[in-house]
Amino acid sequence: MKDFVSMKTMTKDQLLGLLKRIEAIETGQVKPSYKKEEMFIANLFYEPSTRTKMSFEVAEKKLGLNVLDFHVESSSALKGETVYDTAKTFEAIGAKAIVIRHPKENAVQELAAQLDIPVINGGDGKGEHPTQSLLDLYTMYQEFGSFEGLKVTIVGDILHSRVARSNAIALSTLGADVRLSAKESYRDDTLDFPYLEIDEAVEDSDVIMLLRIQLERHSSKEALNKADYLNQYGLTIDRYNRLKEHAIVMHPAPVNRGVEIDDTLVEAEKSRIFKQMANGVYSRMAVIEMVLFQQQLKKGEIKHDFTYPERLYS
Amino acid sequence: MKDFVSMKTMTKDQLLGLLKRIEAIETGQVKPSYKKEEMFIANLFYEPSTRTKMSFEVAEKKLGLNVLDFHVESSSALKGETVYDTAKTFEAIGAKAIVIRHPKENAVQELAAQLDIPVINGGDGKGEHPTQSLLDLYTMYQEFGSFEGLKVTIVGDILHSRVARSNAIALSTLGADVRLSAKESYRDDTLDFPYLEIDEAVEDSDVIMLLRIQLERHSSKEALNKADYLNQYGLTIDRYNRLKEHAIVMHPAPVNRGVEIDDTLVEAEKSRIFKQMANGVYSRMAVIEMVLFQQQLKKGEIKHDFTYPERLYS
Amino acid sequence: MKDFVSMKTMTKDQLLGLLKRIEAIETGQVKPSYKKEEMFIANLFYEPSTRTKMSFEVAEKKLGLNVLDFHVESSSALKGETVYDTAKTFEAIGAKAIVIRHPKENAVQELAAQLDIPVINGGDGKGEHPTQSLLDLYTMYQEFGSFEGLKVTIVGDILHSRVARSNAIALSTLGADVRLSAKESYRDDTLDFPYLEIDEAVEDSDVIMLLRIQLERHSSKEALNKADYLNQYGLTIDRYNRLKEHAIVMHPAPVNRGVEIDDTLVEAEKSRIFKQMANGVYSRMAVIEMVLFQQQLKKGEIKHDFTYPERLYS
Repeated sequence: MKDFVSMKTMTKDQLLGLLKRIEAIETGQVKPSYKKEEMFIANLFYEPSTRTKMSFEVAEKKLGLNVLDFHVESSSALKGETVYDTAKTFEAIGAKAIVIRHPKENAVQELAAQLDIPVINGGDGKGEHPTQSLLDLYTMYQEFGSFEGLKVTIVGDILHSRVARSNAIALSTLGADVRLSAKESYRDDTLDFPYLEIDEAVEDSDVIMLLRIQLERHSSKEALNKADYLNQYGLTIDRYNRLKEHAIVMHPAPVNRGVEIDDTLVEAEKSRIFKQMANGVYSRMAVIEMVLFQQQLKKGEIKHDFTYPERLYS
Repeated sequence: MKDFVSMKTMTKDQLLGLLKRIEAIETGQVKPSYKKEEMFIANLFYEPSTRTKMSFEVAEKKLGLNVLDFHVESSSALKGETVYDTAKTFEAIGAKAIVIRHPKENAVQELAAQLDIPVINGGDGKGEHPTQSLLDLYTMYQEFGSFEGLKVTIVGDILHSRVARSNAIALSTLGADVRLSAKESYRDDTLDFPYLEIDEAVEDSDVIMLLRIQLERHSSKEALNKADYLNQYGLTIDRYNRLKEHAIVMHPAPVNRGVEIDDTLVEAEKSRIFKQMANGVYSRMAVIEMVLFQQQLKKGEIKHDFTYPERLYS
Repeated sequence: MKDFVSMKTMTKDQLLGLLKRIEAIETGQVKPSYKKEEMFIANLFYEPSTRTKMSFEVAEKKLGLNVLDFHVESSSALKGETVYDTAKTFEAIGAKAIVIRHPKENAVQELAAQLDIPVINGGDGKGEHPTQSLLDLYTMYQEFGSFEGLKVTIVGDILHSRVARSNAIALSTLGADVRLSAKESYRDDTLDFPYLEIDEAVEDSDVIMLLRIQLERHSSKEALNKADYLNQYGLTIDRYNRLKEHAIVMHPAPVNRGVEIDDTLVEAEKSRIFKQMANGVYSRMAVIEMVLFQQQLKKGEIKHDFTYPERLYS
């Protein structure tokens, strides 16, 4: 695997291998496996981001990489330069991999197919967000140890959510029992999973995975009924109290407090929202390490007689 | 002291301790006192800044810290994320302290009360700017060695100035004789110090501390009378020539040349304007070191049988 | 030479010395020649840039420098601070050199004359772009080994191009046979070199150096005739096929694909466009190293009994 751009092509073994690797990184059992000297990586974010971008940056610096930070608002993108030409520029000046977020669905996958260096998808429009999915998976893995039969309900603005898509695919691959819950206009018919009401979902789910309502894409009329939305479709205190004993609440953030979730529940006992962010760093370290490692193998810069990632935590 | 957010709570001993520590750092007598490995700090500037932000960045890098640079204009703040959630995100991904500038008075103090990690105030609206004050104090300390009876006149747009507020408080704590000079509409009645005319001030002050006129907040009509302002309220060449032999001129910058001060005086012999900037790096190193040190003590990551900062320059 | 701001003052020996130094850096024969510890450099880009800015950043980090990244859009420039005061601020907080791009012609040269620390020109309005020129020279040097009689035709929007100006000057100094090709309204009468038609140029040039048409400065009417422009003045496939066997095609990028050059030729065999970008890193390393080295000599921080750069590759 040269790139990490989609959950569609990840096998169960690959996902479980990555999850074990993330655990090894988090618990400090391993050291990064590639040579560190003067290695650059470029972060190309064509859309606003705080946590994904900063989480990648921390991961990269922890791996000893030099980070090239692309600021689209002061770049040649203003002069009409294509994503391909910008990415090739970073490759030419020394970047060994590229992390990219782009507003257009599939733009990342197309770029990956054109470049020699690894491409990591930091979110492509309504398409996918595989590293967010990976950190979500890891958060569940920490909690439950396995995915077989795990009841995970993804709740909210599914239609606009790349997080929902990547997670539904990956969870399904891992054997979880994926369900969706959304108001009529937020449903996505291309995802083949059952819909259920939020009141039903809270009572029999192991994981309630809330999504962010993308308020900036909706009309001001809709935005006014935040309390209504919460009461009809969100996680109220009442619904929280009906969760199973061991259930957890997740959200990719940024949270619209009082919309998807009651303000007071963001840091409640069953919430893993900030834990997810911490896990994002370890998850991205594992992904970056993996693609750099495989690139170096392909180029013959390193040798081995075993496959990643067994080598590292065997 | 977990945070460094206000001069109001700083005692005379704490201030003098910090000043000695800054001196020790500037003269290379000490090394940073906390473990350096892979430690991250986040700079959250919600308002434009060159020197404060860059000065913090140099200070952080000199202390061996990894800097996480938050760009509000390409962040999730655009999606409506609160300052608290953004700051918690940085804590979750590994930041050990947060430096924050925010346009709203008290926003920094409120954040500090909510977070477990140390918060350093880089300026809160019209509230305070304690690290600017500290570097100003250090610049006077270098020059005069003590503050008892030192005649310091703060001149200019006092009403809008967080620098004036922090300095008036801290100088008063240190025993200086603080006076203010401002045109009628720039006075701040909440500060209990005597006002005097600029012509009187230049003749008997040890320190003339000019403030920036915040032209961007005033009407264009006022902005037109720059020369008038200088002649009536600013430091003209004539007034400069009437300063005491040993007196110094300070300004937090950016300077409006020809408004608060005659263009040719910015780098005059008695001016310490660029010296202040250089001192800003050492001052911020001392503050960052102090809060990280105390956080590590609190968490039991390091031990000691003496209090900061005595240990370090005894 | 304290600064690197113009090709006008560079002698043939100085240019050839730099080119050999770039080669030594690219091939790993030398190590940077100044002490590295905690040295800061500031990048002040007052205009958008991807490749120049990022290329400088990679060069700086490869030299072991700490990079201070100035973001004009969130800086005190918004409060009206002058370039001089901003640059002095960076000097005060520890920058040992400044790289600057500015929209105003000669702004960089004026700044250099006022500052004690070295200034490197990253492009001044329609003035010069000497590091772009240096990487272009190095790309030709790699290919042809010498410049005597080398037929170089600079093609395109010469009137608005600082790249054209710096290259025409430097190539002429080095003994190359410089020619220009442009539509009537893009010609610059201040450059004393012969104009020829593109169809003639492709058949007898060793180097076709295309320039970017600055579409953002032209009217929408002109912008509509991209195909016409390409056919009349640009590098079409037909013209490419008429190039000499050993000829190369260059372009400073970003490229307007389909305007200056046919889309499919950007990565054609004779194209050195991405090679130029890679060379930019080595070229900027050599320039930064040179000005820092000479500054340290001047200040007596290092001693030597030979002149740069002979010492380094003799």
